[in-house]
Amino acid sequence: MKTPIPDYLGQILDSVRDRDGGEVADYIPDLATAEPERLAAAVCTVSGNVYSAGDDGDEFTMQSVSKPFVYALALQELGRDAVFDAVGMEPSGEAFHELSLEEGTHRPMNPMINAGAITVNQLINGEDSSVEDRVEVIRGFFSELAARELKVNEWVTDSELEHADRNLSIAHMLRSHGIIRDNAHEAVLSYTRQCAIEVTVRDLAVMTATLANGGVQPVTGRRILNQDVCRLTLSVMSSAGMYDAAGRWMATVGIPAKSGVSGGLIGTLPGQLGIATFSPRLNPQGNSVRGVHIFERLSEEMGLHLMAADPSGTHAVRSIQSDGEDTVINLQGPVNFTAAENILDEISGREFPGERLILDVSRVSGFHRMGRKMVKEGLRRLREDGFEVAIYDPEGVVADLEFSDGTHAESVEER
Amino acid sequence: MKTPIPDYLGQILDSVRDRDGGEVADYIPDLATAEPERLAAAVCTVSGNVYSAGDDGDEFTMQSVSKPFVYALALQELGRDAVFDAVGMEPSGEAFHELSLEEGTHRPMNPMINAGAITVNQLINGEDSSVEDRVEVIRGFFSELAARELKVNEWVTDSELEHADRNLSIAHMLRSHGIIRDNAHEAVLSYTRQCAIEVTVRDLAVMTATLANGGVQPVTGRRILNQDVCRLTLSVMSSAGMYDAAGRWMATVGIPAKSGVSGGLIGTLPGQLGIATFSPRLNPQGNSVRGVHIFERLSEEMGLHLMAADPSGTHAVRSIQSDGEDTVINLQGPVNFTAAENILDEISGREFPGERLILDVSRVSGFHRMGRKMVKEGLRRLREDGFEVAIYDPEGVVADLEFSDGTHAESVEER
Amino acid sequence: MKTPIPDYLGQILDSVRDRDGGEVADYIPDLATAEPERLAAAVCTVSGNVYSAGDDGDEFTMQSVSKPFVYALALQELGRDAVFDAVGMEPSGEAFHELSLEEGTHRPMNPMINAGAITVNQLINGEDSSVEDRVEVIRGFFSELAARELKVNEWVTDSELEHADRNLSIAHMLRSHGIIRDNAHEAVLSYTRQCAIEVTVRDLAVMTATLANGGVQPVTGRRILNQDVCRLTLSVMSSAGMYDAAGRWMATVGIPAKSGVSGGLIGTLPGQLGIATFSPRLNPQGNSVRGVHIFERLSEEMGLHLMAADPSGTHAVRSIQSDGEDTVINLQGPVNFTAAENILDEISGREFPGERLILDVSRVSGFHRMGRKMVKEGLRRLREDGFEVAIYDPEGVVADLEFSDGTHAESVEER
Amino acid sequence: MKTPIPDYLGQILDSVRDRDGGEVADYIPDLATAEPERLAAAVCTVSGNVYSAGDDGDEFTMQSVSKPFVYALALQELGRDAVFDAVGMEPSGEAFHELSLEEGTHRPMNPMINAGAITVNQLINGEDSSVEDRVEVIRGFFSELAARELKVNEWVTDSELEHADRNLSIAHMLRSHGIIRDNAHEAVLSYTRQCAIEVTVRDLAVMTATLANGGVQPVTGRRILNQDVCRLTLSVMSSAGMYDAAGRWMATVGIPAKSGVSGGLIGTLPGQLGIATFSPRLNPQGNSVRGVHIFERLSEEMGLHLMAADPSGTHAVRSIQSDGEDTVINLQGPVNFTAAENILDEISGREFPGERLILDVSRVSGFHRMGRKMVKEGLRRLREDGFEVAIYDPEGVVADLEFSDGTHAESVEER
Repeated sequence: MKTPIPDYLGQILDSVRDRDGGEVADYIPDLATAEPERLAAAVCTVSGNVYSAGDDGDEFTMQSVSKPFVYALALQELGRDAVFDAVGMEPSGEAFHELSLEEGTHRPMNPMINAGAITVNQLINGEDSSVEDRVEVIRGFFSELAARELKVNEWVTDSELEHADRNLSIAHMLRSHGIIRDNAHEAVLSYTRQCAIEVTVRDLAVMTATLANGGVQPVTGRRILNQDVCRLTLSVMSSAGMYDAAGRWMATVGIPAKSGVSGGLIGTLPGQLGIATFSPRLNPQGNSVRGVHIFERLSEEMGLHLMAADPSGTHAVRSIQSDGEDTVINLQGPVNFTAAENILDEISGREFPGERLILDVSRVSGFHRMGRKMVKEGLRRLREDGFEVAIYDPEGVVADLEFSDGTHAESVEER
Repeated sequence: MKTPIPDYLGQILDSVRDRDGGEVADYIPDLATAEPERLAAAVCTVSGNVYSAGDDGDEFTMQSVSKPFVYALALQELGRDAVFDAVGMEPSGEAFHELSLEEGTHRPMNPMINAGAITVNQLINGEDSSVEDRVEVIRGFFSELAARELKVNEWVTDSELEHADRNLSIAHMLRSHGIIRDNAHEAVLSYTRQCAIEVTVRDLAVMTATLANGGVQPVTGRRILNQDVCRLTLSVMSSAGMYDAAGRWMATVGIPAKSGVSGGLIGTLPGQLGIATFSPRLNPQGNSVRGVHIFERLSEEMGLHLMAADPSGTHAVRSIQSDGEDTVINLQGPVNFTAAENILDEISGREFPGERLILDVSRVSGFHRMGRKMVKEGLRRLREDGFEVAIYDPEGVVADLEFSDGTHAESVEER
Repeated sequence: MKTPIPDYLGQILDSVRDRDGGEVADYIPDLATAEPERLAAAVCTVSGNVYSAGDDGDEFTMQSVSKPFVYALALQELGRDAVFDAVGMEPSGEAFHELSLEEGTHRPMNPMINAGAITVNQLINGEDSSVEDRVEVIRGFFSELAARELKVNEWVTDSELEHADRNLSIAHMLRSHGIIRDNAHEAVLSYTRQCAIEVTVRDLAVMTATLANGGVQPVTGRRILNQDVCRLTLSVMSSAGMYDAAGRWMATVGIPAKSGVSGGLIGTLPGQLGIATFSPRLNPQGNSVRGVHIFERLSEEMGLHLMAADPSGTHAVRSIQSDGEDTVINLQGPVNFTAAENILDEISGREFPGERLILDVSRVSGFHRMGRKMVKEGLRRLREDGFEVAIYDPEGVVADLEFSDGTHAESVEER
Repeated sequence: MKTPIPDYLGQILDSVRDRDGGEVADYIPDLATAEPERLAAAVCTVSGNVYSAGDDGDEFTMQSVSKPFVYALALQELGRDAVFDAVGMEPSGEAFHELSLEEGTHRPMNPMINAGAITVNQLINGEDSSVEDRVEVIRGFFSELAARELKVNEWVTDSELEHADRNLSIAHMLRSHGIIRDNAHEAVLSYTRQCAIEVTVRDLAVMTATLANGGVQPVTGRRILNQDVCRLTLSVMSSAGMYDAAGRWMATVGIPAKSGVSGGLIGTLPGQLGIATFSPRLNPQGNSVRGVHIFERLSEEMGLHLMAADPSGTHAVRSIQSDGEDTVINLQGPVNFTAAENILDEISGREFPGERLILDVSRVSGFHRMGRKMVKEGLRRLREDGFEVAIYDPEGVVADLEFSDGTHAESVEER
């Protein structure tokens, strides 16, 4: 069976192709010459499947779409506190080129506006890094996320630098408040080169899916970022990513997103997907006209909305199978509080025929602290009810088999 | 086995009990006499299990916690457009008592600030409704959400009305802009009585879980609100619920929430849980000091964060079982794009032994448009590959068995 | 000779009569029925001459034109500090109906916006005053300024009270911050009645000329206000009187002014004139369309601009006359630093023929502290130069004839 | 007689000498090394007398004190409309280094903030001017105002350029909006050199007195600026000169003023005086601590307040002398409406003994349009009353002797 998903993506592209409003960004000469009809979309699941349609091989510069990734890199490199000292995380309610510095601290309001992104860029590779080394670190990180060597478009860089007054204005203001220390022109050069790294929609979908997947690149399986870093990055994208219409975007689309003036737009559903679109014509807010429509359709037709209150339950118990003597309780997925509650609920209301219960956690992707505690306590209580209990944990996700009373669960090697 | 969950909630309460900073709200005399040490928490899952600890039987007035529910009621009664004409949905970045009217339209920025909530209250039961009838509709709706008869605390109402200058100021301003038409004093009376409806944390947890559950009250199983209404309500809660620190709350807690000056705090994880806490002492932003700490711990320890990028996959395929001739593909959960992709991915890569494939959708809670389309197309393509295909759909969730080529899937009565 | 001034005022009225743009205030039913073609202007000099043209006998309600006068009354009654505690004096850059409360203190920004004017009204006649008594004090004060009994138009009061949502909103907000203590409805009633006191343009010109004249009613010659009070009132009018275009008004008109929605507009040139116009049609900022044009012409054609840098010198020395023995130095006007410098300059460069110098200050309207000191010191130094010196001061404006060295000037009874 | 005025200025300096709060500007290294105890004051009358005390020979760089003068130069060179297209004239209510661009136009709010001053600097000597030529034009103009050759302090210029991030930020932002066209670094260089022109307090007093004197340098008697230009410059100084406390400054000091971070402070009383002080320690608003105190004392003790409502009358009639046959009416000062009213009032109420009236205007400094019209009409009406009328106008200030009925006044050659 050939998957129909690329066809569906193609249909969505066709449905927005006649949305020919908007203008290509004209303030950067090189972007102004972009072929405005180009159109592409890609989706990458956290399981590593990538689907795409349209001009999915076309490369374009990332521009502001680079912001959340460099923010994630800074968090990973320096830790949360050091980054917070430099940049806040409140929405600014303003357009992307506004200064939006916090009163008092003069920190940029968040890393999704230019002031914040220029500041974050400066954090990479240490204060004393040369521009070249800093950009190389970023390019290398992006390449790892995309699982291929990306490169900086120097022509676009030069073109943008000729019209960089707003960013220079911002950089000088940041310097005047001591937020950045580097020469303003070097700061803008460094940020501009970050923005000029070229990608396809497929690259962006995979990169974004890495954030959605808690930091593990879903195609290569390599852990690139910590879960905390991803959670924080997505949180800031969610509240500050779409500039001055955060509330409306959350209500109508509900997909944390970030756009760039070259026409790129990325979105993420934590634990599910990375999404990317490309279409150069922009609306007055600087977002891709067709990209916004694609996201609206993805949200509406595909049921992809962060607040979609699907009464899913959690299906954390994959199966419970008894063979007279033994009962194997087969768990799946990540076990947070909600999943653990689901497990305890299913177990506590059930009669088990034999004397032995084996908890098979081989399909559990991970335990949150409380989820682990709850499941182990359930097991302990079952033992108090008279069962023999054991855990089948070939990958050691439970880590520690000690119960709250100091006793331990038995571990079984196979089932 | 007795579930340990209430014990865990109790432990969390104990861990925050010594956070004795903050002050009870003093601007409402009746609230100022609240016993500041009271402390309670409750959780309700979308499967209808309710857990609680502490003073979980104590009643307190809802205050601003009532806002999202009345907003949901207005959306349900009048539809999205009529409500949007009256109240916006952008965060205001301001404290709850600010006017925060949009420039030009003079609409309140969102329904979570008082100006918005007073306006939304006026939408209920028609413009010409008496205060008594309007409040009775709201009280009835809240009672249905809580699955017990709630009542208005008239003593608190009277007490608040004596100190209602801010709300009267807001109501007069709204009237001056034609946003509300009722007499300002009646508007404030109506809103104040809404705020004075009394609940316990268990009530709030169940009510909030109804929003998390797409509108179906999880204990009674009654559908009270449409899914769209819940999604929109949660979206607005997410961007505007915690007043002027939306970004930080999303980053550190990640649970869409709403607080009230009586000490209540509710939070929701769409598709998972409703959460409620109660502790009267407030921080300077007007949020319950201990409530905020409880939510931080729930988020951190229990792994409850909207952006927690758990690489869950979706486990939409519960099992695939062959008995030589037939293969039964057993689906579960809601089927949106992500789930459908997961299903197609599992099916497309697999060899099936017999000639017949039966898709068992009896455990599917619902299909999104695209999910349905994708799954049916997968089935059609399997038929093209030479299989007989059939659907076991006892509850008719697929609804329409016609394929994209005009043919139909066979329906089987049992499996 | 009959003075041509009323003819000139009439010509200016004719020149703006075809400016028929703008609308009468429609938010107050009674004002909405005003005959929009009515047009009048009046000027009163500090010497007490009143000139007028057009519908100069028509009465209309003062509305916001009442604000500077009640502010002056409050300053006179309570002193500067008490009034400053309640109301600030910075321009708000906002329209008249905005709240414009200062951050932190929540004081209204200035007394020329409604929030400030409502607060100032509450200061009159003590906190415990009845509305009736308070309004009677104000009406009495206005009558004294106009030198005739003015009365409150109760019909307009009632009409405005039916549409007083904005002011009620403001009053409730002020109460909620503890800025005013009276019942909000009574505060608005009191302010509304203040606004409904009826005047003609001739009344307004005389009232305004009293401020221009340092507090002495120029027709009756009665001192009603202190000089300090007038200076402060005019200062606030100058920076905050014309709402959100203070800079442009100062640049193009340069006459501190205050307008009201009934069509009145007053302006003042300190030490020179009070001016008043009346024409009901308003521009979008709420200022009389024709009134603004009249003031522009007054400023341009009549040379009435606060910043008109007329190289006037001060002519503080009216004449110096010698009869061989005695030289009489005849001073005039108020003697501040500039005038005193002018006097010393004229005296110090001159040869006097006889042995005796008489300083005639009978035409001096008053001495500023430094002016007095300088003139006396000049006299003392002339004595050191060998002259006999004496002062002719029939009204005692010098007050104290002691010199800096402890000696005294001789006083002469006549000259 | 030696004038005591310098003594009085010295006493004022002594009275503020112990005000040792505040700090010298530290963001410009060269200013940070200023001797903080230096203190000087100077006053220049419109008649050209200059008085000074303290360190009145010390030179310091003008900094922001240069702003009103370059604004005046731009108005003189380019006319009002061209300058208004580039810079607004509303107060910004913000500190001097804020961007304060108008919404929509992105024009700087006014020429007294840095954004406005940088823009105005760019208007001088044409868009294509080199920095060197532009600064030379400004230096030449300042030298003409001061009546001595001033020079640019290149050391301070260089020092400031090393710390010019704020101004560079502003210049880049202005460029990005197309408000200025020059290279941002050259714009800042040009503005910084303007600011680094060195003066003494005596220079500043004379320069400021030129504005107070309607554009005629009072010492040299040369007309340098038009009256309109001065009026507009003083108006903008009055509403926007003292940054964010315009209302309080107007109320308490009442002298339109401008300060600079090097410790200079200038003020002007139109038609009276230019004032300058120098003391390097600054308050948190960036104004000279002692300078502010000196201005407060000048205002209070010397009676120098723009709103000082001195009941001066105008003394426009210097004398009326009859020798039986002829009566000579001797006028003085500038004749605006107020003066003309005063003249007509004095004439119309008086009996003249002979048959001939001679109006002596040899001491009249100038006529405003309406003043001329009124005085001529009064003369015409006196002729209608039966008098022979004639004008003695050796300097031709009346210009046109035609009456409103087409007849002419007789001109006499001497009196």
